[in-house]
Amino acid sequence: MTLDIFGLLPPFAGVISLIVAGYLSYSILKKPSGTTKMKAVSHDIYNGSMAFLKEEYKIMSVFIIGVIIALFVASFYTDLPRETALSFFTGAIFSALAGNIGMRIATHANVRTTAAVKKDIMGGLLTAFSSGAVMGLTVVGLGILGVYVFYVVFQDHSEVGSILFGFGFGASSIALFARVGGGIYTKSADVGADLVGKVEAGIPEDDPRNPAVIADSVGDNVGDVAGMGADLFESYVDSIISAVTLAIIMYIYLSPRFGENIDMYPLIIASLGIFSSIVAMIFVRGKNAYTAMRNGLFGSAIIFGSLALLATFYLLDSFSPFYALLVGLIDGLIIGLSTEYFTSDQRRPAQKIAEAAQTGSGTNIIQGMSMGMYSVFIPIIATAAAMVLAYTYADFYGIALAAVGMLSTLGISLATDCYGPVADNAAGIAEMANLGDTVRRDTESLDAVGNTTAAMGKGFAIGSAAITALALIFTFVKSIEKASITVELDITVPEVMAGLFIGGMLPFLFSALTLGAVGRAAGKMVNEVRRQFRELGILENKGKPDYEQCVTIATRGALREMIVPTLLAVIVPVVVGIWKIEALIGLLAGATVTGFLLAIFLANAGGAWDNAKKYIEAGHFGGKGSLAHKAAVVGDTVGDPCKDTSGPSLNILIKLMSIVSLVFIPLFLKFH
Amino acid sequence: MTLDIFGLLPPFAGVISLIVAGYLSYSILKKPSGTTKMKAVSHDIYNGSMAFLKEEYKIMSVFIIGVIIALFVASFYTDLPRETALSFFTGAIFSALAGNIGMRIATHANVRTTAAVKKDIMGGLLTAFSSGAVMGLTVVGLGILGVYVFYVVFQDHSEVGSILFGFGFGASSIALFARVGGGIYTKSADVGADLVGKVEAGIPEDDPRNPAVIADSVGDNVGDVAGMGADLFESYVDSIISAVTLAIIMYIYLSPRFGENIDMYPLIIASLGIFSSIVAMIFVRGKNAYTAMRNGLFGSAIIFGSLALLATFYLLDSFSPFYALLVGLIDGLIIGLSTEYFTSDQRRPAQKIAEAAQTGSGTNIIQGMSMGMYSVFIPIIATAAAMVLAYTYADFYGIALAAVGMLSTLGISLATDCYGPVADNAAGIAEMANLGDTVRRDTESLDAVGNTTAAMGKGFAIGSAAITALALIFTFVKSIEKASITVELDITVPEVMAGLFIGGMLPFLFSALTLGAVGRAAGKMVNEVRRQFRELGILENKGKPDYEQCVTIATRGALREMIVPTLLAVIVPVVVGIWKIEALIGLLAGATVTGFLLAIFLANAGGAWDNAKKYIEAGHFGGKGSLAHKAAVVGDTVGDPCKDTSGPSLNILIKLMSIVSLVFIPLFLKFH
Repeated sequence: MTLDIFGLLPPFAGVISLIVAGYLSYSILKKPSGTTKMKAVSHDIYNGSMAFLKEEYKIMSVFIIGVIIALFVASFYTDLPRETALSFFTGAIFSALAGNIGMRIATHANVRTTAAVKKDIMGGLLTAFSSGAVMGLTVVGLGILGVYVFYVVFQDHSEVGSILFGFGFGASSIALFARVGGGIYTKSADVGADLVGKVEAGIPEDDPRNPAVIADSVGDNVGDVAGMGADLFESYVDSIISAVTLAIIMYIYLSPRFGENIDMYPLIIASLGIFSSIVAMIFVRGKNAYTAMRNGLFGSAIIFGSLALLATFYLLDSFSPFYALLVGLIDGLIIGLSTEYFTSDQRRPAQKIAEAAQTGSGTNIIQGMSMGMYSVFIPIIATAAAMVLAYTYADFYGIALAAVGMLSTLGISLATDCYGPVADNAAGIAEMANLGDTVRRDTESLDAVGNTTAAMGKGFAIGSAAITALALIFTFVKSIEKASITVELDITVPEVMAGLFIGGMLPFLFSALTLGAVGRAAGKMVNEVRRQFRELGILENKGKPDYEQCVTIATRGALREMIVPTLLAVIVPVVVGIWKIEALIGLLAGATVTGFLLAIFLANAGGAWDNAKKYIEAGHFGGKGSLAHKAAVVGDTVGDPCKDTSGPSLNILIKLMSIVSLVFIPLFLKFH
Repeated sequence: MTLDIFGLLPPFAGVISLIVAGYLSYSILKKPSGTTKMKAVSHDIYNGSMAFLKEEYKIMSVFIIGVIIALFVASFYTDLPRETALSFFTGAIFSALAGNIGMRIATHANVRTTAAVKKDIMGGLLTAFSSGAVMGLTVVGLGILGVYVFYVVFQDHSEVGSILFGFGFGASSIALFARVGGGIYTKSADVGADLVGKVEAGIPEDDPRNPAVIADSVGDNVGDVAGMGADLFESYVDSIISAVTLAIIMYIYLSPRFGENIDMYPLIIASLGIFSSIVAMIFVRGKNAYTAMRNGLFGSAIIFGSLALLATFYLLDSFSPFYALLVGLIDGLIIGLSTEYFTSDQRRPAQKIAEAAQTGSGTNIIQGMSMGMYSVFIPIIATAAAMVLAYTYADFYGIALAAVGMLSTLGISLATDCYGPVADNAAGIAEMANLGDTVRRDTESLDAVGNTTAAMGKGFAIGSAAITALALIFTFVKSIEKASITVELDITVPEVMAGLFIGGMLPFLFSALTLGAVGRAAGKMVNEVRRQFRELGILENKGKPDYEQCVTIATRGALREMIVPTLLAVIVPVVVGIWKIEALIGLLAGATVTGFLLAIFLANAGGAWDNAKKYIEAGHFGGKGSLAHKAAVVGDTVGDPCKDTSGPSLNILIKLMSIVSLVFIPLFLKFH
């Protein structure tokens, strides 16, 4: 069987994916959006989100133009192909487009979810899930189209590396802005709203009198929808790029293996994943929201597994690459389940943290840190095992395939992730528009499921970032070898070891910056909310809160704080690579190891503190208002920037540094 | 000039060191020990400390006998020399002896410091410092004698590796028990005493009515004296062993370089460091305690530098090794100063944490985490640079020499570390024996200086552990090469990378265990103190507290919790090494990188939280009793186990795993 039909699958899957996303968007927008009050609240959130994007685009465009100029200049003095600037630009635009579409729909779906819940809770679930599916399908659709176009248009295999990497670099850059900026935004608004509103003024969460309440809802969108989407767009694109590149270098150039279709195999596998995700969306139903989404996820995995097996049979002369895919799929599953175990309020870890809250905030924090540190064990062992296994099946190519396998059903798994913030917004709108207890409770039950899927999604995002970063590192090494440069990568070479040390340090420095950024940005928000309460007489019902001012403060704070970490992530690998390629490879490995560890620690400790508080609020250890609850609130405050800003930002850091290194290989060779 | 005279320096320095330690002990014991009440309190602390040691020895002897049997069995089936069991035993005994002597003197010096302060504050300083000097000189004296004897007695160079490593392994094992057990002990007693005494019952720190107050003072001795001493005994011994071994393998076997004295050079350098430390003790005087100790430290560094320069001129045919020594010395200095900057209440980091306490415990904790993460930057860069530089001067041997250089003046630098807990105890005794405000204030001023030197000492201990662990890893690699085994240590070998991941994870797991252990042991202490308050009527002055019961609980808790981390540190490298030597080397490198990072993060965040609280107590941001103070107390509680249990325990973990790997090389070769 020839490649002819199979070869057309990737663009076909990409187009279908976008069409389905378009159809889902249309069907969401068609739904009723409730009362005038609801519409007004939703409109404020939409405007706030768009205001953030507009400001973000301004800074991003400066950065993008800067990089394009740098790539152009580099292309004159080195062997960097001139088209890299184009592919970089396209990658950036595609990522921004996916985020923009996903967020637009999410900010229209939130109020429609609330409106649907008024009639029927499952209707609300489907609305919120459809919004997530728009994001998921846009990400995979644009991702596969971009990689396909740049691979097919630039068929010259000897050049294809840098140009493809440029596309990944563009995606990574936007992801950095979206994750770091969005993460700082969402937590500064959240902490600001909570500290003054809930703690100082004693008004409930999402109370419309709180001036930061809209900024808080906007934060859910810019952080958890646009940020998460851009993060996984990056992983998705980078994993396919590294698999394709490794196939070319290792099996088309060096020594043929697995048959002649080996370079298209990752793209075809990805397109099968897209079809599986779309078909499995039919299964998203069941007795409750959790079962419905689980059915969808398992359904897509089973369909994908079968299709991939068939495709492997027709395309390759060995099943080994298929096993590497499976290993990645299973690794992703294990990491997701481990995250769920360590963060769910139904499990021992979060409950032990709640128990420790009885003796105060101090013991609550210590217990949370301890649990967060325990939680790295399973993901690390699973990923190390996956790496070794995938390698035995198909060498470095196998490791890249494991990443592709893990991300294959991203269309539906991202849908379950992005469902969460829409449900969260829907619950907020129910409160802000005074829709009464029943609607509030129903939307909150959807939100609770969203928390679980979001926690699993976070673990999955970290795991996929780690294995993608590994695949990129191996691609880097093979690309250097292809350029006939010998590098001594023995771990005992002092430059490699020094690279390991410095790379290992970077995630700590990066987290220090982002944690500090949330503190500073939240401080400004606290002062603004205090000022409004004091000067506008909102609590005495004399004046109205100025939502827009809070949105502006969160936006400016986030974007200003984003600059230093961004430059760090881009400049450090370039400088080190110019100094010594050996040190750069050590640096990438060190950053991947500690970035992975720290991201899991921060995300799981944060998630567990959050759910320990929820466990107490459900009536345990004295319930709401008890001393244990006060202690748990402190844990939750500490955990918020850990799990929503610093942890997720590390995903980007490790991938971005690797892809930057790949793009600038011609520069490093010049200085070698 | 022949080696004859120089060759006798090491045993001579060892003996002189012990004689001076003996003389100092005698002069301390001769001093008056104050009122009957003071003697009684001191006696309780002494008894508690000895009770802990006795229980610890029981568990340790089981472990030691187990290892001796294992070494014997291994010597029948592999090439492991039978004498390794003897050297292991001697290393363990020497380390235990140093800890025992140091702690005995410390528990006699505390009350004599208080008594001396009643007359003259500088007299108190000298008493406490002399006690630290006994510890310092015993450590270096026994250390150099042990290494010298095993090196000279077993002159057969081809066998000398395992036997010398055995001595280091013995020292490391005791260090693990002392650091982990002592660290859990001291913090469970401290947290227990504070939570119930200070927070719940509202009685002052060190109030004699608090049943846990003696256990708390005992904890300072078992954690900060015996634990710190054993930690640095291990670093000291291991660094010399790795330098001697690398000299033999690289320059006596493979290709001669630097002249024929190169193997004795590290031992001679170490003995010059001992002489410098002893002479510099004369300079320990000045207008206040801090200047006095700084004069001693700088004096010893200058004398040592000059002597080492001379010795290099006479012994070697190049000055390169001397530069490697200097690089290590400077690296240690930079790490110490960086630690001081990030933890002192006179500097921005701790003050910013105090500032963040104004908006509550949550922001206080976040700011502390952020500062702790920043603080890894300088030590990592300095150590990476030191490694690369030392390597350019003298290859791997240079890296081991950097460790020897850093630790050369340990005799006096350990004296300033161990001065701290004696001064702390002295302040406690002044309170418990009701000696009035002046004595209390004077002893507390000595204690304050002790906090600064202890913080710098902690940084120094971490830095020396990291560079020693590196030297051991390189020794391992060279020893494997010497056995004519080729291992592929390319960082892209999946087993090496998997080793990096798993090794990187171990410090997280280890910290999770030790943090959890403090929580559990402190919980038991809290319940016991509450019980005594309830049942014995202590607060109503009806009954007397049962100090002994609290000491027993802390002892049992610490020793029980110590077992799992200990087994982990010993068994994991052996199992991984049997599987794949490549993976083991990756594991050691990964553990050293994240162990170093995590240890600095935990120690500095903990120290900064502590001093942020002290800064507020000094009257800033509302002073004692303000909301900011309450928040800062939470930070201090969180920081306590971070800086005194988990952080320091990581020092041992990284060295112990490396030395275990070295000892079991014959076993790994068998399975290779």
